[in-house]
Amino acid sequence: MPIVQIHLIEGRTAEQKRALVRKVTDAVCNSVSCPPEAVHIILSDMKRENYAEAGIPYNDKK
Amino acid sequence: MPIVQIHLIEGRTAEQKRALVRKVTDAVCNSVSCPPEAVHIILSDMKRENYAEAGIPYNDKK
Amino acid sequence: MPIVQIHLIEGRTAEQKRALVRKVTDAVCNSVSCPPEAVHIILSDMKRENYAEAGIPYNDKK
Amino acid sequence: MPIVQIHLIEGRTAEQKRALVRKVTDAVCNSVSCPPEAVHIILSDMKRENYAEAGIPYNDKK
Amino acid sequence: MPIVQIHLIEGRTAEQKRALVRKVTDAVCNSVSCPPEAVHIILSDMKRENYAEAGIPYNDKK
Amino acid sequence: MPIVQIHLIEGRTAEQKRALVRKVTDAVCNSVSCPPEAVHIILSDMKRENYAEAGIPYNDKK
Repeated sequence: MPIVQIHLIEGRTAEQKRALVRKVTDAVCNSVSCPPEAVHIILSDMKRENYAEAGIPYNDKK
Repeated sequence: MPIVQIHLIEGRTAEQKRALVRKVTDAVCNSVSCPPEAVHIILSDMKRENYAEAGIPYNDKK
Repeated sequence: MPIVQIHLIEGRTAEQKRALVRKVTDAVCNSVSCPPEAVHIILSDMKRENYAEAGIPYNDKK
Repeated sequence: MPIVQIHLIEGRTAEQKRALVRKVTDAVCNSVSCPPEAVHIILSDMKRENYAEAGIPYNDKK
Repeated sequence: MPIVQIHLIEGRTAEQKRALVRKVTDAVCNSVSCPPEAVHIILSDMKRENYAEAGIPYNDKK
Repeated sequence: MPIVQIHLIEGRTAEQKRALVRKVTDAVCNSVSCPPEAVHIILSDMKRENYAEAGIPYNDKK
């Protein structure tokens, strides 16, 4: 029943997402002793103008 | 003031969403005794590659 | 796979929560055609000082 | 380390979002005494059919 | 209808939270042109063992 | 900048949480190529009456 939500800057490939959910599921199961079927993961893609640190949108950085 | 967020796999019609928010609002009001105006609902559509169970993205499921 | 999170002011009884998750699950299943087993619900109790409308904490409201 | 998520009806310009994250970061830092670098903000755009009050989708209002 | 959630390390006083929700509401209204009544804020207190950066819980830092 | 939130049934020890955030951080960094410092994790403990599957609270199961 662990429910995981991960906010990421958009642009990850389907292959990266596939690796991400597999590895995070393993990490959760190994740490809190639950079967993989119990782990639910939501990935949320953020546009670069929709994430900010220190008051500055990500697409204004650098 | 109940605030409800529902993550759904994308592809629901506007008509399904209209029924969903109406019925969930009724369910909340009947259960915890609040007026409908107090219920706020956010629907979040998930792409099939963005939801996983057991470490497998939804679009890889058979 | 619908995942529902509901933020509520604290103080609901276990009986009210039991009714709430049952009725919301029914509402979701009837609206988007999924089996009850697919519906996951997280309830989040909010302390009255932790919810605000119009810039005013709930416990300051008359 | 404050982490802020703001759900907004879609349609805000990049300029409005830039002002929003700057002003919210200032508001957080002034209130809880943290450096701006510690404040992380996620903006989530909602389609008008994906937000409801009183059981009615926002795009059906008025 | 902006809905704001702020995760904070626990320990803020009621007075700090009162200032926080007032100032964040002002910041939102000034940036996206909405009345204060439309702004809903959820504060979520995090225990120090429940927040991590760089893989290290906050209560292990320093 | 990945931001991860994990909802767990309450009762995990500080040691389990320490392992969890370390392993999840590694899993994220390995999958989407980011430094550990960029990964922020929020753990949210759920009381057993506050999580439900199939319309049944977790503390009523079994």
